[in-house]
Amino acid sequence: MNAEIISVGTELLLGNSTNTDARDVSQALAALGVNVYWQTTVGDNPARLTECLYRAKNRADLIVTTGGLGPTCDDLTKQTIARAFGRELYFDEDAWETIKAWFGDQGRSFTENNKAQAWLPEGCTILPNDCGTAPGCIFETDGVVVAMLPGPPRECNAMLKGHLIPWLADRSGQTIRSHMIRMFGVGESAMEEKLRDLMDGANPTVAPYAKLGECLARVTAKGADEAECEAMMAPMVEEICRRMGDVVYGIDSQSLEHRVLELLGEKGKTIATAESCTGGLIAQRITSVPGASAWYKGGVNVYTVEAKEKLLGIKGGFIEKHGVVSAPVAAKMAKKARKLLGSDIAVGVTGWAGPDGDDVGLVYVALAAKGNCFVRRLTLGAKSDRERIRTLAAHNAFDMVRRYLTGLDI
Amino acid sequence: MNAEIISVGTELLLGNSTNTDARDVSQALAALGVNVYWQTTVGDNPARLTECLYRAKNRADLIVTTGGLGPTCDDLTKQTIARAFGRELYFDEDAWETIKAWFGDQGRSFTENNKAQAWLPEGCTILPNDCGTAPGCIFETDGVVVAMLPGPPRECNAMLKGHLIPWLADRSGQTIRSHMIRMFGVGESAMEEKLRDLMDGANPTVAPYAKLGECLARVTAKGADEAECEAMMAPMVEEICRRMGDVVYGIDSQSLEHRVLELLGEKGKTIATAESCTGGLIAQRITSVPGASAWYKGGVNVYTVEAKEKLLGIKGGFIEKHGVVSAPVAAKMAKKARKLLGSDIAVGVTGWAGPDGDDVGLVYVALAAKGNCFVRRLTLGAKSDRERIRTLAAHNAFDMVRRYLTGLDI
Repeated sequence: MNAEIISVGTELLLGNSTNTDARDVSQALAALGVNVYWQTTVGDNPARLTECLYRAKNRADLIVTTGGLGPTCDDLTKQTIARAFGRELYFDEDAWETIKAWFGDQGRSFTENNKAQAWLPEGCTILPNDCGTAPGCIFETDGVVVAMLPGPPRECNAMLKGHLIPWLADRSGQTIRSHMIRMFGVGESAMEEKLRDLMDGANPTVAPYAKLGECLARVTAKGADEAECEAMMAPMVEEICRRMGDVVYGIDSQSLEHRVLELLGEKGKTIATAESCTGGLIAQRITSVPGASAWYKGGVNVYTVEAKEKLLGIKGGFIEKHGVVSAPVAAKMAKKARKLLGSDIAVGVTGWAGPDGDDVGLVYVALAAKGNCFVRRLTLGAKSDRERIRTLAAHNAFDMVRRYLTGLDI
Repeated sequence: MNAEIISVGTELLLGNSTNTDARDVSQALAALGVNVYWQTTVGDNPARLTECLYRAKNRADLIVTTGGLGPTCDDLTKQTIARAFGRELYFDEDAWETIKAWFGDQGRSFTENNKAQAWLPEGCTILPNDCGTAPGCIFETDGVVVAMLPGPPRECNAMLKGHLIPWLADRSGQTIRSHMIRMFGVGESAMEEKLRDLMDGANPTVAPYAKLGECLARVTAKGADEAECEAMMAPMVEEICRRMGDVVYGIDSQSLEHRVLELLGEKGKTIATAESCTGGLIAQRITSVPGASAWYKGGVNVYTVEAKEKLLGIKGGFIEKHGVVSAPVAAKMAKKARKLLGSDIAVGVTGWAGPDGDDVGLVYVALAAKGNCFVRRLTLGAKSDRERIRTLAAHNAFDMVRRYLTGLDI
């Protein structure tokens, strides 16, 4: 199957948004064995979208559009596609009820123009929107499948994974399963060198990804059913884990913080935080995981020397002596937080996140446990931006906790 | 001038990379008054790239390609473009010297295939690469300007801003400027209903955008110079602000938290945080703004009843009496944080972020100031996910601070 992705939105052509939808759809289709040869972006312009659609229907079996399903007069994707493929739009009462219910649930009121979202191409299958109002839809015509997804990335992604991909998988009669092996503490090229020969396989396939500070390897198998897929993947997953060693922090974990919460639960340990340069980022990531309250005892955001003294009781003299960004201060922060909140372990982070200063990128991350305290010194690059420095500092804190809880060297 | 952006790279079609180059080039061209009507992505495939080029040269005056300038056999952009436009490639000795010098600088050695990067289309202007080896280039043919940029985002961006844009600005006589009006507390459809007639204008233009909980309107003008653009935009910006009223939180602000930090600075006021369901998110957003330490006194993440008692001294009996998610508890959190940290104002947030529970989406946000305390009750939807609830709760906290600091009703 050959697919073409058409992204609709003037904001993309103006560079106001990054087209993560095209990436997400491409990635999901690749995992399904669908080839994507073209991605095209057009504005909220019916003539250019129509031109795109005519070209796409001659060279693809599947056209996926993203964007232009909103309630405003800019949003013309459905109308334009219906016209291009000779379909009428009809008013779907059920879709309208769902939209109204969504507004009710949010305690918000809808306006007349929200009704536009309930007009859909005749004979389509509705793709429910689990995160917003605009339903997507899918129809087949002249051997081409046309699927419309909303533009907001969260809505697009949820509909893609939750509805479009299952619909396509169902239709292909094939089952596709994958596992994501997640790593922290190894570079992309180093990972690729270790796994290169495994990436040549056809079924299962192994595909590498890199994210800020993390590496991922996705193993995907196609088979008659789930059991067959799992049986094909198991030796490959094992081999990858064997080669990569303890940088592998999880298989199918959502993130470092999810893995840490899982481990805290398994070991029955609680955690607390004391953050300076990350200023609440670690706490925020911990509490983004449902059920975190069972293991997260709380934390303090001590962005200033004054706050370190007031909230943690760290004397100004101690900070002055060692420097606010130092191993002793990070360690003291972790120890004080642990004591103050009565947790089993605690992390403390202090560093220079920039943009100004001499030592931008220098960060100390400490982990305090009963009778033990570990400190990692990070140099994250003087030219790194705040977001990068803060994210990598938080990643390292989670990695230290993970390694501590699984008995690895820190 | 009409431009078309062609991104070359199989990794984009597989969804392994996000196409930030297309966004960056689009944004830079928009600021220059160049219209971008198409962005297309193709793989490392000469036939499809050629098809793209032929189409582009008939509908654009400027073609910008990104990617495919590397040293490997995948990298075919220059060869393919030269062939499509009937140009020969020649070996540029100076470019080769520059490439070799770059390797020397990095203490790395080059390989024979790096020589491929010094072959360039005859008669081109070389665009130097300040962050890597592959030079870009630009040439004109039959009234079309063709510019080639490298794929790695850092290299692409540096060449774009440092060399391509200056070249284009020099060549055109026109200037484009825009302002972004940012709003909180109004829905996308409601905003559009109020501004619809303004969106029909050609110069300046008005375009609406929506983000989670926020609405934006961008006003863009083209003129002979900056002063002319500003003069054209001023009455439009004023009219939009007049119609939308006090939901407008900023013009050209980066975000609610940037605006809040700006206001804190203007008024010389400090802030503290006490977060339950947002668990550090508000603190993290405050500290994501450079220079936050001057106005952020610190905060506590009191995700549990125990932490509320330990860190803020709120008695368990008080919480039991009112319920942990209640207006009195939110207010008490804000007041205690203000006192504890000695700040002028403080926010306190308590709510149910789900996914489980009876009252998911119910959140109380309090703002404590000298002699005053305000509480907002939010019902953010029982079906909303944690991220949405937490983000909107944080947005509301910032909005309350913004309204308080500017003397508006809260």
